[in-house]
Amino acid sequence: MTHKLSSEVAFLDCIDRHFPNSHAHLIIGRGDDCAVLACPERICLSSDLFLEDIHFREQYFSPEDIGYKALAVSLSDIAASGATPLGFSLDLMIPEGRNPAYWDDFFGGMASLAQKYNVPLAGGDLSKSPILGTSVTIWGAPTRTAGGTPVFLSRTGCSEGDIIFLVGTLGLARTGLYALESIGRNAVDEYPAATGAHLRPVPQLEAGQLLSAYSGITLMDLSDGLARDLPRLLGEKTTASADKPSAKGASINITTDMLHAEQLSYALEKNLDPVLEAFKGGEDYALLGTCPASIFAELSVKLPQIQKLGIVTNNGKIIMNGQPVTEHGFDHFA
Amino acid sequence: MTHKLSSEVAFLDCIDRHFPNSHAHLIIGRGDDCAVLACPERICLSSDLFLEDIHFREQYFSPEDIGYKALAVSLSDIAASGATPLGFSLDLMIPEGRNPAYWDDFFGGMASLAQKYNVPLAGGDLSKSPILGTSVTIWGAPTRTAGGTPVFLSRTGCSEGDIIFLVGTLGLARTGLYALESIGRNAVDEYPAATGAHLRPVPQLEAGQLLSAYSGITLMDLSDGLARDLPRLLGEKTTASADKPSAKGASINITTDMLHAEQLSYALEKNLDPVLEAFKGGEDYALLGTCPASIFAELSVKLPQIQKLGIVTNNGKIIMNGQPVTEHGFDHFA
Repeated sequence: MTHKLSSEVAFLDCIDRHFPNSHAHLIIGRGDDCAVLACPERICLSSDLFLEDIHFREQYFSPEDIGYKALAVSLSDIAASGATPLGFSLDLMIPEGRNPAYWDDFFGGMASLAQKYNVPLAGGDLSKSPILGTSVTIWGAPTRTAGGTPVFLSRTGCSEGDIIFLVGTLGLARTGLYALESIGRNAVDEYPAATGAHLRPVPQLEAGQLLSAYSGITLMDLSDGLARDLPRLLGEKTTASADKPSAKGASINITTDMLHAEQLSYALEKNLDPVLEAFKGGEDYALLGTCPASIFAELSVKLPQIQKLGIVTNNGKIIMNGQPVTEHGFDHFA
Repeated sequence: MTHKLSSEVAFLDCIDRHFPNSHAHLIIGRGDDCAVLACPERICLSSDLFLEDIHFREQYFSPEDIGYKALAVSLSDIAASGATPLGFSLDLMIPEGRNPAYWDDFFGGMASLAQKYNVPLAGGDLSKSPILGTSVTIWGAPTRTAGGTPVFLSRTGCSEGDIIFLVGTLGLARTGLYALESIGRNAVDEYPAATGAHLRPVPQLEAGQLLSAYSGITLMDLSDGLARDLPRLLGEKTTASADKPSAKGASINITTDMLHAEQLSYALEKNLDPVLEAFKGGEDYALLGTCPASIFAELSVKLPQIQKLGIVTNNGKIIMNGQPVTEHGFDHFA
């Protein structure tokens, strides 16, 4: 952690109040050039940006929400690997004009999640910046199978006939985002579940760890919406057409009974197709995966919230409710 | 690596051209929710921001320089731990208006350094952003002593009587920065060494690894200037006064013969004290450390570029050339 704030002592004190600097995983914690970490033979690691007006808006994100979600989206990547988070580092971009109470709330929101999953803040960087933003890097330990083999799940490797499943909500966060964008923070009262899904997504860590005990699973987290992420799960070749006939495809079914009442009422009010909206989605932070058809019944017992979306096909197309789908999902960059 | 660019395929292709996605350390490389890394029992890890108009200016940084330095400052943290870099992740903030050639140069500058130290790009994030910037997280393996014990160096733990040493230049990058700020990119012709020290700092990895073979060494990288970093090496209590009489201090000597000719000529031209400028410094990315006096002679043989700056005292003060020093060094935030 390099120090680049004249008020860095105040910042570091605030961080120290919220995040313990000792943990079995931390040999050397915050305050040196590098943290030193006790590691298993393999770790998984992911980094994510969380930037003002790109990934969140201060008009309707409280400082606690921002701190919370900056870490939650990274924990979701650990969930998608079926892993257990070991630690994280935080690079914080600090604009002028926020008072100490703001940062206390920000770190409080982040620390609530760090505490829940017992994941220590190992280090990072603080810098003045024209925009508020974070870069969180997070790493995790593999879940061990009954035989003791360390396993990380990957998004690649599904097979024709595999069942496509979902753990978490589909498109609920999109409804929340749209409601917040049009109504502002007051949308929290009208659409509590949907805005909660956007402001405070719940990383599916326990589900990811449970899934990693099974063979033949592929898994990813649903961050950009089913429409954009499903082709990634199937492999990039699904974007190709007739000249690549061997590419994997999917046949899925999304029905209104799979959607939250708030999605249905919002779609009704705005004259939108709730199923297509759910398909487009975005920032669901649900888990999207595949498994051999033979184990889905057992998974459904162990993980009652798992939903079957469809099956992997071999025709390079995505078919939803019997029709080819061409719509694109949520895209932060477009 | 989550994907958030509509032109992400072009970006990822460019990244793939510059950075191999296979390496003994990478079990799963870029393209999944997490990278999976083969790790020794302990690793060190550091994250740093590198932001437009905070840490660099596009007026006089070429795209290659920006890509290079974003990684170099992180490698310098690994050097300060006496470690060997194993891998890094890159979160890239992408403003509008740069063409593909710009990014090819940017990644080329970064890849030149990654290739030199055989350090793979394991993953990261791409996002649209109002400013250009990076967050680089880097991790490294410990150097092993003759007995096979894995060692990371830390900045804490120096003792009274230890020798304070430096590996690298002192204040040369500050001269480069000031020349670039006042003259612009043309300063490269007039002050090639000084501007080079600011634009393309050389991480002292080999020196750090060599130092970690010795007992009783403390080490940090000199990123904020000797004036600000020396108290950190001595322990934060050096900022206290008479009520903490047991705090460590330092007595150092900086003479003009230790400084580069460009520092002297620039100081002469601007009517500055070259020694005080060198003390303030900033972004030297030299290694600053302490060692028992008994081993300094041997270190000087193994590491001919090592310079003695002074000794650790027990009076809580920093004395330079016989006088107490109160000046503050370079501060990105102030």
